[in-house]
Amino acid sequence: MMPTMVLAVELIGTFFFAIAGSLVAVRRGFDIIGSVFLAGVGGLGGGIVRDLILSDTPATFSNPVYFIPVVLSAVLVYLFTPAVKKLHRLVLVFDAGGLGLFCITGTLKALDYGMNPVSSVLLGVSTAVGGGLMRDVIANVTPELFNPRDLYAVPAIAGAGLTSLSWTLGWFSTTLGIITAVLVIATRLAAIKYGWRVPLAAGHWHRQPAAPPGDGPQRNY
Amino acid sequence: MMPTMVLAVELIGTFFFAIAGSLVAVRRGFDIIGSVFLAGVGGLGGGIVRDLILSDTPATFSNPVYFIPVVLSAVLVYLFTPAVKKLHRLVLVFDAGGLGLFCITGTLKALDYGMNPVSSVLLGVSTAVGGGLMRDVIANVTPELFNPRDLYAVPAIAGAGLTSLSWTLGWFSTTLGIITAVLVIATRLAAIKYGWRVPLAAGHWHRQPAAPPGDGPQRNY
Amino acid sequence: MMPTMVLAVELIGTFFFAIAGSLVAVRRGFDIIGSVFLAGVGGLGGGIVRDLILSDTPATFSNPVYFIPVVLSAVLVYLFTPAVKKLHRLVLVFDAGGLGLFCITGTLKALDYGMNPVSSVLLGVSTAVGGGLMRDVIANVTPELFNPRDLYAVPAIAGAGLTSLSWTLGWFSTTLGIITAVLVIATRLAAIKYGWRVPLAAGHWHRQPAAPPGDGPQRNY
Repeated sequence: MMPTMVLAVELIGTFFFAIAGSLVAVRRGFDIIGSVFLAGVGGLGGGIVRDLILSDTPATFSNPVYFIPVVLSAVLVYLFTPAVKKLHRLVLVFDAGGLGLFCITGTLKALDYGMNPVSSVLLGVSTAVGGGLMRDVIANVTPELFNPRDLYAVPAIAGAGLTSLSWTLGWFSTTLGIITAVLVIATRLAAIKYGWRVPLAAGHWHRQPAAPPGDGPQRNY
Repeated sequence: MMPTMVLAVELIGTFFFAIAGSLVAVRRGFDIIGSVFLAGVGGLGGGIVRDLILSDTPATFSNPVYFIPVVLSAVLVYLFTPAVKKLHRLVLVFDAGGLGLFCITGTLKALDYGMNPVSSVLLGVSTAVGGGLMRDVIANVTPELFNPRDLYAVPAIAGAGLTSLSWTLGWFSTTLGIITAVLVIATRLAAIKYGWRVPLAAGHWHRQPAAPPGDGPQRNY
Repeated sequence: MMPTMVLAVELIGTFFFAIAGSLVAVRRGFDIIGSVFLAGVGGLGGGIVRDLILSDTPATFSNPVYFIPVVLSAVLVYLFTPAVKKLHRLVLVFDAGGLGLFCITGTLKALDYGMNPVSSVLLGVSTAVGGGLMRDVIANVTPELFNPRDLYAVPAIAGAGLTSLSWTLGWFSTTLGIITAVLVIATRLAAIKYGWRVPLAAGHWHRQPAAPPGDGPQRNY
């Protein structure tokens, strides 16, 4: 993909994650500064970690245009705050958009910097899930990544894997990238709607209650 | 500012944040090792993140003198533990001191490393709020950054902005830096005393209870 | 130590921490993806932070062999899930194994990269406690590092200090490294068994209840 197109896709992905971050701030009763901050962590955090691991100055800091979707999302969420009961669902939908775009751009940047194909997949997945994870840990809500009620990382792993494989084989194209992103987002949304799951961490799960009563201080939002 | 002076200011700022970190450890019932650790995270965490983003070996590790205020704070807090009911207020006061100094030294270092003025402001603010945020997330108390009852980041944003602007225009001087730091600290303390606020993340906040009952597992300390 | 031997020790340490991470995932009711993720954070997180501070591409990403113990641990824990009541104890035992190996390899790598002896100790300790801390913060359980009921960091500090001192004096050898690791692990396990402690963060601890009732949202797992 051309650099301008990659930048455009990254800005759109940042915007999706930033909206999700601002919505989490609303749900937790934070103020507008907290909204900007969670939008920034969610939208930019995954890419910053990726760039630090690649020994590169984070794109976010070398090019301040990345801050525009962050501030924009906090303003939009302030102006058009949805009803509380729709908040959780909306966070998941916007989060899915960011997940689908970042698993591809993250993998491509890692490959472009000479990472091996396996590490590139892992760095792509880290880019995709890292911002949302930091957002949830900082806001003290259970990370969606750990929610055993639907798939979260699996579509991102598949998307990053397909991207790394096709790039290594010389088959990657902009069209394939767009199709992959759409498939990742669609799979994630279907997983939410239909409750697709993977097995629990414990094999004998019938002996392990998934949510021990009174056990966890966190909750879903 | 001369390097020696910057180092002195950074050590004082580290000491302020380190005292705040040790007080959080007391409040949470941690031991003396936990006190040193939270002092270190609070006092050094923001600068470490700044230096990693600037692709520089963190100053903390190239010059071990930074660990002196960290260990000193844990010893002082051990010897002169304040009454529990004063703990929260004292954390905020020392935290304000670190905030005021680090928003200026963080911005100056970013400018010195060739960052653009906008990113330098953001990196200065990250330096100022980063250590306290990590401290609070690790100790599992609600970060002051997200407390909607008073301003936290706004004075630091103003201080970093003024520093970046005056430096870019060639007007920055040690005197201006000191005046800015004093103003940031005074504004932060006044915000705590008088409860100055910014709007909530949600525009129709009358429909969004700021603290849904039974909603958040965290608390202020 | 020869590079191959360091790699072998790091892989064993990663495996210990990865098992501990997967067991935390079981205890919190996460799915198999969450198990792999917590295994990765616990097993690789400390080393990634160390390598970022050393301005090196994290070994984890330049050599994908590090991911084998991570995936293996999630599979093993899935197949042989222990009874719930043994989980906490097992997490501590495997965690002790990682702690003992990483405080030495972390210190050696820092010295090898030209860090001064004091900072090398701190970086070694960060490598040893960093992964477990991130694992616990992300999974929202009280970090063992802050548990005032037994020593956690002290054996790692002693092991890193001894390694740095002997290396600086030219006395370090593979045999000494192995003896140090065994002593660190044995001390940590004895501290768990016999409840060895250090003083609380507060000097007048008789006036500071260690666990204010209803105060902390977290719990030990």
